[in-house]
Order: sequence, then structure tokens, then C-alpha cells
Amino acid sequence: MTWLRSAFQDELDGVTATLVGLSSLVSDAISKATHALLTANLSEAEAVIAADDRVDDIQHELDARIIDIIARQQPVASDLRALVTALRMSADLERMGDMAHHIAKITRLRHPGAAVPSELLLTIEEMGKVARTISDKVGGIINSRDIDKALEVERDDDEMDKLHRKLFTTLLDPKWPHGIETAIDITLIGRYYERYADHAVSVARRVYFQVTGKFSK
Amino acid sequence: MTWLRSAFQDELDGVTATLVGLSSLVSDAISKATHALLTANLSEAEAVIAADDRVDDIQHELDARIIDIIARQQPVASDLRALVTALRMSADLERMGDMAHHIAKITRLRHPGAAVPSELLLTIEEMGKVARTISDKVGGIINSRDIDKALEVERDDDEMDKLHRKLFTTLLDPKWPHGIETAIDITLIGRYYERYADHAVSVARRVYFQVTGKFSK
Repeated sequence: MTWLRSAFQDELDGVTATLVGLSSLVSDAISKATHALLTANLSEAEAVIAADDRVDDIQHELDARIIDIIARQQPVASDLRALVTALRMSADLERMGDMAHHIAKITRLRHPGAAVPSELLLTIEEMGKVARTISDKVGGIINSRDIDKALEVERDDDEMDKLHRKLFTTLLDPKWPHGIETAIDITLIGRYYERYADHAVSVARRVYFQVTGKFSK
Repeated sequence: MTWLRSAFQDELDGVTATLVGLSSLVSDAISKATHALLTANLSEAEAVIAADDRVDDIQHELDARIIDIIARQQPVASDLRALVTALRMSADLERMGDMAHHIAKITRLRHPGAAVPSELLLTIEEMGKVARTISDKVGGIINSRDIDKALEVERDDDEMDKLHRKLFTTLLDPKWPHGIETAIDITLIGRYYERYADHAVSVARRVYFQVTGKFSK
């Protein structure tokens, strides 16, 4: 059975590698989407929108592969749970790609204007940085199964929530000089960054649970 | 093998019944969340918020049961795909419950004020009705595997998108008399109804794919 077991391990490693690759693609997407948003850069926004198809394709291929592994190898207990968890992680990562895509679409919609007024540039830039940090960490965690790093992601998410609240405080300032359209854009943009971070936290929690058998929160 | 096969079929039927039950719970939640929102009814909003825990519990129990069935029965081909699809449907339905929960939280936040100004009551009421119609249909489709009904859900979703656009048109009217806070609330509320319908469409598409082996769109 040794060679069989080892072939299975190779397949699991392949799944992990693809998940790490997906997290790197969405990290890249959120960085570029943020840069495009802050600089009203249409071609960069278009590139983010186009690149999301690749994330979707990889996710579909990965899901089919995972189901095929389950069917052929008939894993039980922790191996089966690892594969089901991988299916859920791939769904989270695909959704993170969608959030970057949504942000890029707002950039495109407002071009040649800018969706983000100058007084919010720094906050959004910070949200983009936190988002990228979180998904970079998540890629590392999927690979290393480092549970201390997995807990760190919760703190990064608290930072994102703080920035999200700051966004609303600025919008609700009675002196807010911009109109309703900008308020709608900022509300949606804020929601997309927050959801991006939520999905990253969800991936980190799944790793934590797999390693420890306990919930991190 | 007949009795084994039939025990497996019983388990699959049990999974289907739980999914139908979940869809009925979220239908109920979105109806009550809408009513609470339109009437600024705090106790009804609190009830929706509390009831979401039950949806989450049922989903967790269902997911554990599905993984246990896969481990014990080691299904292949279409049976395995049906179980993996059930896992995804339960995630969609749980998320629909979250959307009702989010709407109820806005009602609670603004109480005793009303989150929705009078000129938008009818549009939101309509969105709530479409949401309920969609999830009621989805419950029926999970049970009957009726692919014509599954296609109908796509049209209901188009109706939801139309209402969503109408919401933005009203917000962007230069004569919009309400402030930024109301615009933020309405933007988020609109997004929650839209996502509720998106997840319902996702369930309908999964049924369609399972029955026909083709994508509906």
C-alpha cells in the first residue's frame, strides 16, 4: 500500500499547491484593483477584470480534480475532511477574486472620473494593503499550516473592520462635500474589501480547524 | 446489494429533505426581515436575527452528515457529485439566511426610526416578494428536480436586478431629499436582496446541472 498512499499524498500536495497559486492570483488582483481604483487607471482595471476568468477556470478545474480524487481514492476520516475543506477554500478564494473584479468594475464605470474622492484615498489605500497582506498570509498558511499565522489573520481582519468604520465616519461627516453617487460607490467598495477579508479569514479558520480540531473563534 | 443501495438512497433523500427545510427557513426569514424593515418593527427584526442561529446549526449538522455519508458509502460518479452539490447548496442557503439577518440588523440599528424612506417602500416590498418567490421555488426545485422551474428562477432574478436598478435611480434623483446615511442603508439593503437572489439562482443552476449535465447559462 505504500506507493498508493504516497500517490494519494502527491495528489493532496497538488491540491494544496493549486490553492496557494489561487491565493497568489487573488492577492495580485486586489493589489492591482486597488491601484487602478486610486489612480483611475482604466487599462489596469480592465486587466483585473480579464484576469478573473483565469481564477474561475482554475477553481473549476481544481474542484473537478478534488471530486475525482475522492471518487478514485475513497479517502475517509481526516483525508476526506482535508479534501472537502479544500473545496471550500477554493470557493472562498474564487469569491475573493470576484471582489477584486467588482472593485475594478467600479473604476471602469467612473472612468475617466475617479470613484474615490481625495479625502478617502489614504483609507482605501490602507484597505488595499491590509487585503493584500491577508491573502499573502493565507497563501503561506495553506502551505505551512502554521496556526499562529492563522490567528494573526483575525487581527488583520479587525484592522480591516476599523478602516471600514473610518470610511463610514468620513461619509457621514455633515461636511461631506460629495454627492450620493460617490457615497453609493464608497459603500459598495467598502463592502467588497470587507468581504475579501472575511473570505480570507474563513480560509485561515479552516486551516486552523484542520490542524487543531478546534474552532479559532 | 439492493438493501445497501436503498439505505444510501434513504440517506440522500434525507439530505434533500433537510435542504428543502433550509430553503423554507430562509424564505420565512426574508419575508419577516422585509416586513420588519418596512414597518420598523424591532421585535420582528430581533426574531429574524435569533432565528439565523438555527439555520447555521442545521447547515453545520447537514454538512457533517454529508461528509459522513461520503466516508461510509464511498459513492462514485453521480452519487458523489450529488452529495458534493448538496454541500454547495447548503452553503448557498446558509448565506441567504445571512442576508435576511443583515437586513434585520439594519432595521434594529435604525429603530425607532425607519431605514427605508416612504418613496422606496414599494420597491423594497417588491424586492422582498421576489426574494421570497425565488426561495420558495428553489425549495420546490430541490425536491422535484424540475428543470423548467429552475430556468424560471433566472427570470425572477432579472426582475430582482430591475428592482435593484430602480433603487439606484431613486437614490440618484437630484431631488433625493434624504441624506447620506439613508443612501448608505439603501445601498447595502439593495445589495443584500440582490445577493439573496444570486444564491438562490446558484442553487437552481446546480439542480439544473445535476439533472441535465449542462449549464443553464
